[in-house]
Amino acid sequence: MHKTLYALSLLAVGCTQQPAEQAKNPFSSGQWIDLSYEFSDETPYWPTSGPFRLNTDFEGITPGGYYYSAYNFCAAEHGGTHLDAPVHFAEGKWSTEQIPLENLTGDAVVIDVSEKARTNSDYQVTVGDIEAWEKTNGPIPDQAIVLFRTGHGTLYPDAKNYLGTDERGAEAVAKLHFPGIDPEAAEWLVGNRKIKAVGIDTASIDFGQSKDFKTHQLFYGANIPGFENVANLDKVPTKGAYVVALPMKIKGGSGAPLRIVAWLQD
Amino acid sequence: MHKTLYALSLLAVGCTQQPAEQAKNPFSSGQWIDLSYEFSDETPYWPTSGPFRLNTDFEGITPGGYYYSAYNFCAAEHGGTHLDAPVHFAEGKWSTEQIPLENLTGDAVVIDVSEKARTNSDYQVTVGDIEAWEKTNGPIPDQAIVLFRTGHGTLYPDAKNYLGTDERGAEAVAKLHFPGIDPEAAEWLVGNRKIKAVGIDTASIDFGQSKDFKTHQLFYGANIPGFENVANLDKVPTKGAYVVALPMKIKGGSGAPLRIVAWLQD
Repeated sequence: MHKTLYALSLLAVGCTQQPAEQAKNPFSSGQWIDLSYEFSDETPYWPTSGPFRLNTDFEGITPGGYYYSAYNFCAAEHGGTHLDAPVHFAEGKWSTEQIPLENLTGDAVVIDVSEKARTNSDYQVTVGDIEAWEKTNGPIPDQAIVLFRTGHGTLYPDAKNYLGTDERGAEAVAKLHFPGIDPEAAEWLVGNRKIKAVGIDTASIDFGQSKDFKTHQLFYGANIPGFENVANLDKVPTKGAYVVALPMKIKGGSGAPLRIVAWLQD
Repeated sequence: MHKTLYALSLLAVGCTQQPAEQAKNPFSSGQWIDLSYEFSDETPYWPTSGPFRLNTDFEGITPGGYYYSAYNFCAAEHGGTHLDAPVHFAEGKWSTEQIPLENLTGDAVVIDVSEKARTNSDYQVTVGDIEAWEKTNGPIPDQAIVLFRTGHGTLYPDAKNYLGTDERGAEAVAKLHFPGIDPEAAEWLVGNRKIKAVGIDTASIDFGQSKDFKTHQLFYGANIPGFENVANLDKVPTKGAYVVALPMKIKGGSGAPLRIVAWLQD
């Protein structure tokens, strides 16, 4: 047999097996990363919200002789790792249960502004940051989930450092300091790219000092949901991760506790 | 060029591209199915649990002139589509936040007993049902998530039909009637197969008339979590679906609201 022909036939035989096996189980080679924080009495909430509460129904040995534990809980929608449904800031847009799974799952990109945000808790992601990212990585793909990494997640859950204040009540709101997304950047993304959702490793997609929550209004007015207090963004690559973001399915909710994970293919 | 050589070189060129593309994104061709019910004041709970409550923090136009809505909520862990963490019935086993993502995600099989359960609300899945399934489909694969379809989901959320009673309080518990998994079947699965998790389209993996919750004790004692009130099991094929089951990450929880979805590859 001709040497080249033999080499090519080996290649051909090898390749008919490989795709068949991969098609059988595409999840055989990769891993899930958890981008969600735990809910506990340490979970930081907005100064005007109550804390997460877990109450014991029962915990111990029952009269039947077996162990049993059960709890109930109360929470504000918008604390810990959570979803903002578009209706949070845009009347008539999707509430929590209305967001299609298609908009909660998809290829993710990570835009890292942590170098700038490290020394400035009031940092807002700019149009320039997005343009710089695209210069290196190409345009943000259609239907991407865009995750902004400010690096602020390293301060979670200590409210004083993470939120800028651990004081409670309406007067503490003015003391919030954490990075967010500049409304101009939100406007640019809504107008120029077709993205499914946005996420950030801070308590809010608007920075702590925002008074009018313009970035919320812009994204949610376009039915683009937000993921806030997203964890472990340092473990997600710039491109190539696939995100599954599943909120508790609260009917009529303006948000919900969110379990968000990323699939990293080997 | 020799004809065969040319054909083989085409094959070889074709195949080096195909696996690379498949490896990049197992989610490139298929769809997500939601196996989760909404949480609302219609969500059925155990007779001894309180209802799901959504309370309004704010809903309307703010002094700033923009729309805003936010709510808080209270719930028992074990109502609606939810996770049972192993610690629910097995001291020292995984609580909600401790269950690895690896055990909440994986290939699913559906064992359909709806023909038998349709006429018997006290039906319990038997070892024979599992053996019959395996005779047709082969052994339940290692690391499978096993979903039992009793057909009872068609009655959700009407408590009288779905739970067997819409009465509340401790005395109503004896009036619960819905299908579950026979403890002998649970024991067989724990002893003979290596499964990740079990799910069912009823309120509990033990049938409504259970007094000692043996099936719970057996699975959870083996650190095999349970998914209860799973929706849309008629839309999941016998084999071939990939399940992602993400509970709210409650620290120390014995369970949690669960958003469970299935990926059906094209």
